[in-house]
Amino acid sequence: MTAEILSVGTELLLGNIVNTNACYLSEKLASLGIGVYVQTTVGDNADRLREAIRLALSRADLVVMTGGLGPTPDDLSKEIAAECFGMELEEDPAVREQIAAYFQRRGTAPDQVPDNNWKQALVPRGAKILANPNGTAPGFLLEKGNKAILLLPGPPAECKPMFENEAIPWLKQKQPGVFYSVMVRMVGIGESAAAARIRDLIENSVNPTVAPYAKPGEVHIRVTAAAADEAEAKSLTEPVVNRLYEEFGSHIYTTDESETLEQNIIGMLRERGMTVATAESCTGGKIAARITDVPGASDVFREGYITYANDVKSRLLGVREESIRRCGVVSEQVAREMAEGVRRASGAEAGIGVTGIAGPGGGSEQKPVGLVYIGCSVGTRTVAKRFCFSGNRALVRTNAAQQALVLLRQMLLEETENM
Amino acid sequence: MTAEILSVGTELLLGNIVNTNACYLSEKLASLGIGVYVQTTVGDNADRLREAIRLALSRADLVVMTGGLGPTPDDLSKEIAAECFGMELEEDPAVREQIAAYFQRRGTAPDQVPDNNWKQALVPRGAKILANPNGTAPGFLLEKGNKAILLLPGPPAECKPMFENEAIPWLKQKQPGVFYSVMVRMVGIGESAAAARIRDLIENSVNPTVAPYAKPGEVHIRVTAAAADEAEAKSLTEPVVNRLYEEFGSHIYTTDESETLEQNIIGMLRERGMTVATAESCTGGKIAARITDVPGASDVFREGYITYANDVKSRLLGVREESIRRCGVVSEQVAREMAEGVRRASGAEAGIGVTGIAGPGGGSEQKPVGLVYIGCSVGTRTVAKRFCFSGNRALVRTNAAQQALVLLRQMLLEETENM
Repeated sequence: MTAEILSVGTELLLGNIVNTNACYLSEKLASLGIGVYVQTTVGDNADRLREAIRLALSRADLVVMTGGLGPTPDDLSKEIAAECFGMELEEDPAVREQIAAYFQRRGTAPDQVPDNNWKQALVPRGAKILANPNGTAPGFLLEKGNKAILLLPGPPAECKPMFENEAIPWLKQKQPGVFYSVMVRMVGIGESAAAARIRDLIENSVNPTVAPYAKPGEVHIRVTAAAADEAEAKSLTEPVVNRLYEEFGSHIYTTDESETLEQNIIGMLRERGMTVATAESCTGGKIAARITDVPGASDVFREGYITYANDVKSRLLGVREESIRRCGVVSEQVAREMAEGVRRASGAEAGIGVTGIAGPGGGSEQKPVGLVYIGCSVGTRTVAKRFCFSGNRALVRTNAAQQALVLLRQMLLEETENM
Repeated sequence: MTAEILSVGTELLLGNIVNTNACYLSEKLASLGIGVYVQTTVGDNADRLREAIRLALSRADLVVMTGGLGPTPDDLSKEIAAECFGMELEEDPAVREQIAAYFQRRGTAPDQVPDNNWKQALVPRGAKILANPNGTAPGFLLEKGNKAILLLPGPPAECKPMFENEAIPWLKQKQPGVFYSVMVRMVGIGESAAAARIRDLIENSVNPTVAPYAKPGEVHIRVTAAAADEAEAKSLTEPVVNRLYEEFGSHIYTTDESETLEQNIIGMLRERGMTVATAESCTGGKIAARITDVPGASDVFREGYITYANDVKSRLLGVREESIRRCGVVSEQVAREMAEGVRRASGAEAGIGVTGIAGPGGGSEQKPVGLVYIGCSVGTRTVAKRFCFSGNRALVRTNAAQQALVLLRQMLLEETENM
């Protein structure tokens, strides 16, 4: 089965809101093995809406529409979808009842309900009505021949539960077989270097398919198989995932769809009974913020310092003034002393220290904008690495935070090997 | 002029990422007076990409494409766009040079650059090359007759600056007359409350138009006028902006398009010759990270503490153990002592202290997930406020960081009034 997503709403075309429904629906449909090849957004305009529905129906089995189900005259999704299938609209007494009840709960008597709202009781003849416990607009499922249109409300808080509870059970019935995908996440290697090493897989694999995704400082490779059941699908993905492990080894930090690098590192620290403390200059708290994004981070993270000014690095972390004078505050030596200093100050078993020039000002010929030193101290070892990031201030900071986590992970891995 | 947005990327169709580029570009195009009637997303598939480009060109003057400019064989945007305009690809020595330089800065010699990457030096003959200081993929502007295709990279950190710096100046030239817009940014008031107070403006204004945008913890109101020249446009927007100031007063923190709340606060601190220090628990560094996102933050920010564990709050900030025992660590009293304690520890003239339950665990009936106390100490006053945020961990943390900045701004304003 293939589907297209058709989002309706002028507020999307004006950039007033981000289309999170399209992302949510695409992911859900993919996980059900339903291919989505096109997403379209149009405004509340009858002609363009009609054209978009017809075009989508000509290409896909199912058109999933969001928005345009509200009570205003602008809202046209139901009307035009019914027209495309040659269905008439008729008032549904049960839906009328629900609308009355909805307003009653909010203290509005039926004769006080704005006229507009009764329009929501009109139903395309023969359509399945989808309950909306979170609003007044019901959803609809229209079927004709081997084509279908699913009409969902626009607000994500109404759209998502309706899709989950009303649409997914119907879709599962319709779908033969299963789709199963493994997300292989890697750090410490670039997208093109990674793609070059597995070009044969990317270009020649059909089932499973192999697709690389570049994320800031990471490469993700998705391996997706279609099969009659999950066991068969897994047997198709397994050899490919093994090949990726052979190729990339410890660059791979997870094959768990939802695991982030910071989650992975927190797991490693927890296993080892270690805590980590951070001392950040140019990253200004971004590393600590990423670590504490993870629920339960308090098991391995107790404190962090943002030492933005030079004298604060000395006062809080014991960085020697002489090191700053001799090597400069953006130097391997200072990154090293920050990483060691934050361990001393906090008593943590691992320490990170980052010092650099995020820009746009503050660069020089010897020390350009983007120069960052990252220190990491684990067990008896302290390592400091030099990086030269391109891009603007935000990118330098994001990359520095990412590489600090990558270095910490690497040190934790090496520490285990040495034991 | 009309435009369509065509986003390219299988990761969008699989729902791996939310399409924030489409939202950003739509808003920017609207502010330039360019109507966007359709947004489309397709994957890395030559046939569907070709069909989508042709269809968009048949309806709009300009097709703004994002994504598919990377180095892998999957990346086809440039190739198919050039084909649609009958342009050939040829290697551009200057772009090749830039790619070499990009890798050089990362310590990769030219003969070590993955073969793939040289593909990015291929340029459609006659196209304008758009610089990408934030990545290896340049953008392109292709013109043929009265149609144009703008090719932008997919990563938002590359797409947005390129659009801002390279595309907007070109678009402004193309547009007859001027569109002039003022962005009025407010905090401390909700979107529906704000919209209700200026419903007449939003519904009845034609030139200028008045449109509210809800952002996390902020309301932005864009006032856009079309006129023959900028002076005339300004004379149209001015009375509306004045009306907004009458209505919302000090809720408005800026009418400068590019000024963020943190920039505004840094400006206020700098004017007053003050510094601020942060003590964060549940926000874990996010407030400091936002402050240090701003170039030149070092003038007003010297140090910050992430005091995640209870005893760290006492050790580093002097929060009394008795307060934690008596009131709980998530309490007004502890937020207050954190804000005052961080001023003592740092010598800063302003201090922020945040303690809360970000979830998903750790909540109770009395202290549910989402409960956050924010303390702020400025001059001789310390204030602590209670918040109860909804949403998941990320949302609670983001909202808490935002409201901490809002409270700091309010305290700084009141401090000045009292002087």
